[in-house]
Amino acid sequence: MYDILIVGAGPAGLTAAIYAARNNKKVGIFEGNVPGGQIVVTATVENYPGFGKVDGPDLAYSMFEQVMNLGVELIGSYVSEIIKTENGFIVKTEDEEFQAKVVIIATGTSQKRLEVPGESDFENRGISWCAICDGSLYKDKVVAVVGGGNSAMEETIYLSNLASKVYLIHRRQQFRAEPHIVEKVKKLENVELVLDSVVEEFIGDQSLGKMRIRNVKTGQERIIEVSGCFEYVGQIPATDFVKELGITDEAGYIQVDNNFETKIENLYACGDVIVKNVRQIVTATNDGAIAALNAIKKLS
Amino acid sequence: MYDILIVGAGPAGLTAAIYAARNNKKVGIFEGNVPGGQIVVTATVENYPGFGKVDGPDLAYSMFEQVMNLGVELIGSYVSEIIKTENGFIVKTEDEEFQAKVVIIATGTSQKRLEVPGESDFENRGISWCAICDGSLYKDKVVAVVGGGNSAMEETIYLSNLASKVYLIHRRQQFRAEPHIVEKVKKLENVELVLDSVVEEFIGDQSLGKMRIRNVKTGQERIIEVSGCFEYVGQIPATDFVKELGITDEAGYIQVDNNFETKIENLYACGDVIVKNVRQIVTATNDGAIAALNAIKKLS
Repeated sequence: MYDILIVGAGPAGLTAAIYAARNNKKVGIFEGNVPGGQIVVTATVENYPGFGKVDGPDLAYSMFEQVMNLGVELIGSYVSEIIKTENGFIVKTEDEEFQAKVVIIATGTSQKRLEVPGESDFENRGISWCAICDGSLYKDKVVAVVGGGNSAMEETIYLSNLASKVYLIHRRQQFRAEPHIVEKVKKLENVELVLDSVVEEFIGDQSLGKMRIRNVKTGQERIIEVSGCFEYVGQIPATDFVKELGITDEAGYIQVDNNFETKIENLYACGDVIVKNVRQIVTATNDGAIAALNAIKKLS
Repeated sequence: MYDILIVGAGPAGLTAAIYAARNNKKVGIFEGNVPGGQIVVTATVENYPGFGKVDGPDLAYSMFEQVMNLGVELIGSYVSEIIKTENGFIVKTEDEEFQAKVVIIATGTSQKRLEVPGESDFENRGISWCAICDGSLYKDKVVAVVGGGNSAMEETIYLSNLASKVYLIHRRQQFRAEPHIVEKVKKLENVELVLDSVVEEFIGDQSLGKMRIRNVKTGQERIIEVSGCFEYVGQIPATDFVKELGITDEAGYIQVDNNFETKIENLYACGDVIVKNVRQIVTATNDGAIAALNAIKKLS
């Protein structure tokens, strides 16, 4: 019986593990992929305090190593199901079962992709999924944002402060985002709306240089020159394995209270996977620490 | 006119500076002391993800250097007053005035001290103000906690999981803490209550070894052997300079909404100085990032 089992070894899960292990708890952490979460697929991290500029995988490894040195057990599998029992939880993987008094879910999200030619070639070489992380690379350059929701709008506003010009590409005429934020975007002088349009191809040499765009109404194509493109076509919270528990909102994000506890007692969630506004490394580590400290209190 | 002036260069203020500067804002940060906040007076930090084990001053310097490299201006003075104007704020130091559209307060807290002989000798050599930070150094050892409020109780519970024995020393018979948490503490087998008692002296060689305790009712003294002592006799939020603004609670902590904005528009606060439950480096960096991102949104 573990005191605490953590599902997911990104910054939130790893921080929860640090705090739990330092309180002498028996802790296991599940990770079916490489530890580090979204950091691992981030070329350079420049907004994590204390590290200046660091390669994503290096930062991920530093966090992971810290957790391993504290005696936390890594369980290299994906979790397929969590079952509430009388005095805790059963956590199932494809071929094993584990028991714990407390479970902390920190499985994060994955970014939806456009899935068009050239996308994989220029990932982190011009194509990004985080304006706050990578925006400053494009100071006084031309960039594109793809999407029509609140995130796309907010990141367009954010980038308009940095870039010389922002193309906002959206496949429809109408935006899904809230009207007040759409209004704000429309007032920005250096933002060009490219509506009813989809991205057909990313083009470049070493890094992204152009995008081929097609108007879905007229069929006309155009090439725009950009140094960067930010895709905001949706995130997918990794919560399929808890579908049955009724702890997620319509979009699949987990709902928690101020203590990061779900409506199921002793089941916590933290990091990108929960309902929240800002998804950054520092917000994930915050959540992980608070979730673990509350779990420790409960276990006493 | 600055876009954003940040008051205090601990983890919260420095993180706010990172996020604001990376969005191309004109940012100044006030610090009358050494940058780094409470980290600077922490011997070793072991719970900041990615750093494993790091000297407090080194971590503080890394964060500070990162901010300076982003072109943020350091203003090496204490702030004496913040005045709301029609389109922003005037921030006053002893002999200068600065103007900004947004101000972020991140002045943190200082720990109250017992002010008894030996205390300064064994600071960070046995005497600590943070069980979550330093508790794991005292695994299977005997420690003392001094205080009678919720913090003292919570840290006693936390330490009871680690230490072989915890003396809980309190100057009165009754605890100020909430009854349910006091009950929890009283049930812990390895906690000895030392009531109506005050610490007279810290004694040791290289590090803390003993404490001289006096019962205030009987006048009797006793020596207890301890490896560590955690003082929880209160924190002092550094908010004297905003007393007139009516943004603090009774204890002097700043009240903020979910966006870390005070009731005065465009005046934000983050980190240890705000009303909150968990005061850790990771929670401070979280607050600083979110406060800055909301300020950036407002400025657009």
